[in-house]
Amino acid sequence: MNGEMRALIKETDAPGLTMTTVPIPQVGMRDVLIQVDKVGICGTDLHIYDWDEWAKSRVKLGTVIGHEFMGRVVKTGAAVRNVSVGDRVTAEGHIGCGFCYCCRTGQGHICDKVDIIGVDINGCFADYVRMPEENVWRLHPNISDEVGAIHDPLGNAMHTVMVDNVSGRTVLIIGAGTIGMLIASIARAAGALQIASLDVNPKKLELARHMGADIVGDPRQPGIEEELRANTRGGRGYDVMLEASGNEAGIRTGFRLLRSGGWAALLGIPKRDVSFNLAEDVIFKGITIHGVNGRRMFETWYQVEGFLKQKRITVDPVITHRLPLERYAEGFDAMRRGEAVKVVLDVAGSR
Amino acid sequence: MNGEMRALIKETDAPGLTMTTVPIPQVGMRDVLIQVDKVGICGTDLHIYDWDEWAKSRVKLGTVIGHEFMGRVVKTGAAVRNVSVGDRVTAEGHIGCGFCYCCRTGQGHICDKVDIIGVDINGCFADYVRMPEENVWRLHPNISDEVGAIHDPLGNAMHTVMVDNVSGRTVLIIGAGTIGMLIASIARAAGALQIASLDVNPKKLELARHMGADIVGDPRQPGIEEELRANTRGGRGYDVMLEASGNEAGIRTGFRLLRSGGWAALLGIPKRDVSFNLAEDVIFKGITIHGVNGRRMFETWYQVEGFLKQKRITVDPVITHRLPLERYAEGFDAMRRGEAVKVVLDVAGSR
Amino acid sequence: MNGEMRALIKETDAPGLTMTTVPIPQVGMRDVLIQVDKVGICGTDLHIYDWDEWAKSRVKLGTVIGHEFMGRVVKTGAAVRNVSVGDRVTAEGHIGCGFCYCCRTGQGHICDKVDIIGVDINGCFADYVRMPEENVWRLHPNISDEVGAIHDPLGNAMHTVMVDNVSGRTVLIIGAGTIGMLIASIARAAGALQIASLDVNPKKLELARHMGADIVGDPRQPGIEEELRANTRGGRGYDVMLEASGNEAGIRTGFRLLRSGGWAALLGIPKRDVSFNLAEDVIFKGITIHGVNGRRMFETWYQVEGFLKQKRITVDPVITHRLPLERYAEGFDAMRRGEAVKVVLDVAGSR
Amino acid sequence: MNGEMRALIKETDAPGLTMTTVPIPQVGMRDVLIQVDKVGICGTDLHIYDWDEWAKSRVKLGTVIGHEFMGRVVKTGAAVRNVSVGDRVTAEGHIGCGFCYCCRTGQGHICDKVDIIGVDINGCFADYVRMPEENVWRLHPNISDEVGAIHDPLGNAMHTVMVDNVSGRTVLIIGAGTIGMLIASIARAAGALQIASLDVNPKKLELARHMGADIVGDPRQPGIEEELRANTRGGRGYDVMLEASGNEAGIRTGFRLLRSGGWAALLGIPKRDVSFNLAEDVIFKGITIHGVNGRRMFETWYQVEGFLKQKRITVDPVITHRLPLERYAEGFDAMRRGEAVKVVLDVAGSR
Repeated sequence: MNGEMRALIKETDAPGLTMTTVPIPQVGMRDVLIQVDKVGICGTDLHIYDWDEWAKSRVKLGTVIGHEFMGRVVKTGAAVRNVSVGDRVTAEGHIGCGFCYCCRTGQGHICDKVDIIGVDINGCFADYVRMPEENVWRLHPNISDEVGAIHDPLGNAMHTVMVDNVSGRTVLIIGAGTIGMLIASIARAAGALQIASLDVNPKKLELARHMGADIVGDPRQPGIEEELRANTRGGRGYDVMLEASGNEAGIRTGFRLLRSGGWAALLGIPKRDVSFNLAEDVIFKGITIHGVNGRRMFETWYQVEGFLKQKRITVDPVITHRLPLERYAEGFDAMRRGEAVKVVLDVAGSR
Repeated sequence: MNGEMRALIKETDAPGLTMTTVPIPQVGMRDVLIQVDKVGICGTDLHIYDWDEWAKSRVKLGTVIGHEFMGRVVKTGAAVRNVSVGDRVTAEGHIGCGFCYCCRTGQGHICDKVDIIGVDINGCFADYVRMPEENVWRLHPNISDEVGAIHDPLGNAMHTVMVDNVSGRTVLIIGAGTIGMLIASIARAAGALQIASLDVNPKKLELARHMGADIVGDPRQPGIEEELRANTRGGRGYDVMLEASGNEAGIRTGFRLLRSGGWAALLGIPKRDVSFNLAEDVIFKGITIHGVNGRRMFETWYQVEGFLKQKRITVDPVITHRLPLERYAEGFDAMRRGEAVKVVLDVAGSR
Repeated sequence: MNGEMRALIKETDAPGLTMTTVPIPQVGMRDVLIQVDKVGICGTDLHIYDWDEWAKSRVKLGTVIGHEFMGRVVKTGAAVRNVSVGDRVTAEGHIGCGFCYCCRTGQGHICDKVDIIGVDINGCFADYVRMPEENVWRLHPNISDEVGAIHDPLGNAMHTVMVDNVSGRTVLIIGAGTIGMLIASIARAAGALQIASLDVNPKKLELARHMGADIVGDPRQPGIEEELRANTRGGRGYDVMLEASGNEAGIRTGFRLLRSGGWAALLGIPKRDVSFNLAEDVIFKGITIHGVNGRRMFETWYQVEGFLKQKRITVDPVITHRLPLERYAEGFDAMRRGEAVKVVLDVAGSR
Repeated sequence: MNGEMRALIKETDAPGLTMTTVPIPQVGMRDVLIQVDKVGICGTDLHIYDWDEWAKSRVKLGTVIGHEFMGRVVKTGAAVRNVSVGDRVTAEGHIGCGFCYCCRTGQGHICDKVDIIGVDINGCFADYVRMPEENVWRLHPNISDEVGAIHDPLGNAMHTVMVDNVSGRTVLIIGAGTIGMLIASIARAAGALQIASLDVNPKKLELARHMGADIVGDPRQPGIEEELRANTRGGRGYDVMLEASGNEAGIRTGFRLLRSGGWAALLGIPKRDVSFNLAEDVIFKGITIHGVNGRRMFETWYQVEGFLKQKRITVDPVITHRLPLERYAEGFDAMRRGEAVKVVLDVAGSR
């Protein structure tokens, strides 16, 4: 597969992205080449577009961005054994080193030397993307292209819910973005008793309710904490708190509303240090906190497949915008304005 | 049992304690009366003595202080079934309500309505203390009176180590006070591979090494983090971090030195909010944090008994000072000066 | 509360039960007296009625039988603190010793000295039953008397499902009696992906489907194992096997259909030793097996309350027969003929 | 690497093995070729030598036998990334398919399509053995060649102990062969409180005591069960039972001596179906049973390395016989007579 392809890259040390033409990636012995059909825009891509401090410190100029995608395998390296040309696939975008303690014990998602596509190495906002065979995930025929394209955040949400047990428990979700909403749907399917969702955006809260939340609210609304607490066993607070906002005030609210002996999963990434009342909110309450990063390879992926195949979860409503690849800027704008939840770009259609 | 008894109480709204005479407690139907033989001074007692902000906000004037003790049962209420006059005992000082969700599911140590003796209700720095039958713990004959008297902090240390699994893991302990040292001894017995202990007091570090730490160090010493890290698998950091200092800098050091996928237990109580790099130290690393409060009722107590009976743990070296009850002020002073680790007061001998 | 009451007792060393009059139980300091309103007949009661080998070896003549009930508190002992006259209650029928290792560590359901009401001591097929305060469970107003009366088997089913995690897993249930059916409903609510139920009684299978099973079948039907296996991931077998039949052939079928790395919970009581292919079915597959007895005190009870309050589980359809206490023999007959699933006897109405 | 090599093969459909010459294995793109230095004889090899029913049903004539070894890498396939010529290594002998659910979720040891070297495909009783790169394990310099050669059974023992938690628990080991003895040493290091070992061979029991058992006994000795039970908390039985005999009577004894709420790990392979009192020994006691197969890839291997590097476990005493490869028959004979525990054959020295 020689020649060139379209790609959206971070070209200059300033806000913005550039649609350009770059060489199609070369495929190593253990790699496959995937022709990209659909991609999703993530908040991370927006950070790179806007070129914030984090992006500047991490992303090299010239990188093809994007990490949410699906497509078809068009070429396989000589040592590839389990993936074939024609396979309809997505892929785990965290590429571990494959040989460290984490990678060899089923924790490759937290490999210290991980390369993330679209951040550390070239990504998928392009006609083709190269992936190691081990990272490729075949899509079940019942799963649509669009849902296939957003397996990355769907997996984040699944990992967050399944990092501990939600069966028969009351669950509080902080943040109703793409992942917060997907968490609501998954927590419902995974056996949560009752689900509350907090966000400052009323439109997103409405959607969260549609996705599975029993109660929604704005954390700034007076009396909201008392109201939520009243819904829990003995007014003692939620059994489980799932954090998908990365917002300091949200995190603090979440811990206050978590009951003694409960557990929390933290997925949202705060931009700066967060101050905690460790004594009252963690130690005296004897709670357990799980940091959640990426997706477990590949337990999380099997869980996603299982819930989708059995139609136990709702995913489509989070996709609020669909655009051809060329109109990517409109998608980024809709996200920046808080209008869009998930934007899916069509790469195949505009080829 | 009518009459009066000696007691150390918090009498006035100012630093200091008062040795005085108060009525012997009345015993309810489900209670027992224990004649106190030996007691231990805890850092919490020092806070009450010094009358800091926390103490002022929590302790009522007139309270008999102290929560670490052992003695003998001298009277039992009419409905008591399993404790007898003459039993040599200590007791769990967290008195749960007995009927809430936590109390009825084996988590009484985090009951929301818990009363702690010597803090919320009258304690054990006295000739007699009243305890509900359920809280009483019989001491095995092989266990000395002194060790019996400090089962409370020994149980804190045991709970911290056993809240998750240390077998075959490298363990970093932050803080080498009484509990930090006991943690070293217990972690060794519980199967830790290698133990490091950090503190700013060189005398305590020496004792921690004696108690089971393989490596000790002062966190302020240049290069110490690199040196510690070099002792861990692939330089990736410790598998387990056990926090017994409550010191913000110590907590932050501990989290930096914890490996991806590791776990931490937090027992030390910070005096104020603690600021965290939640993204780098918790979320990206995918770690698990356990808040640790009190002792599990009564799993922790059985574990303490088991390790002591089989002589697998070392406790005596932490008791650095022994004084008659009347000379309590000397004990508090030695603690305040950082000279003492654990001070045991003899109540029986001075009766 | 002096005087006499109606009671169904095991009077003679032969099949049958006797409706008679006995003294109302005396209430100890920590006990309560409950006026019984409704009771459920359990398979265990049928064994006592039919006086099989197990019953002869365990039950003393003269015992009031029955352990499933609900009613109202009419008297409380002097040391009772948390239960009041008038409370509408059911109770945990396993009365632990309260002071052994199991009882003091939240495992009272497997206390070695447990007394089971209606088996080891007097039970609830009577106008009144005495229970220790600790065993009493208040019924939420939203829960009907009938459902309250069968909290015992509902708790068995809940314990079986919640002993490990079913979220996102395929579940095979062996046996579609009362408990097997309740397991289907609970597993669905607790997040199971797909549920199969096996039994030899087609009427019960139909009901199991109604309760939540996606697939039902008779294990004797040719090709059934292949058919079931085809529904599982890669044909590898079920993630979870929940045994509620106690039947040797059923147990063996269940283990064959469990995938490598899966887990099983065993609740059904086999009448004699069971022969296992331990090598193929347990060791090589690396599975985990949980023996399930009674209900966790009181985690299971809170779970039952939570699922009932939120209306996430279906219970009513298992109650196929309702009779006044006096017509108890008809209920036993219907069970013996396999016609009845759960028979509820009305004690209050016939008073 | 062309040419021929020595190899011990199963040549004819009758008891015995044949030392012969076969071609050196070809190396695929993802494989490495290892020159074998030392090997261990396993009970499995003895079954193949003696050609029992199991061996006949599983092993193809012509197979090079042996699966315990260490050596040096002499060639690497073109796609190999992390192993280099000259590396001193052993390897995981269970070769999973790499792409099924188990293989992709860190449970490759129970892959349904696993090939075991020396059983399903050619093994290591030869001058060279071929292994997929993923299965290769580098030996730390502090680990001797002999201990390196028996990492397979050492890993079995480690997996058995670490499949659940032994810290602070009393442990009963059934069987004092190589693995039973290694379990004693590992359980001690992993934090067990007290260890009992049962076997019928007094010499092995003596060695087991040396390896870490506190109490040893012959299960046929009258009163032994009472004596063992008396050593446990309240006479209630052992917290943990680790089965390494595969003997039905041993398994039944083990379950009888396990306390309510305890856990068991089963590693020994019974030759035929085993009959259980499932009601009394599993269900009423509410115990948990883990089937143990192989070694977790590669958590178990890291645990082995950790305990060996820190010198926390004793391995050498289990190696009772050392012979050059050619004298393999003497080693098999010593095992058959129960004289040998572990026999190590020197392949390098006789080259």
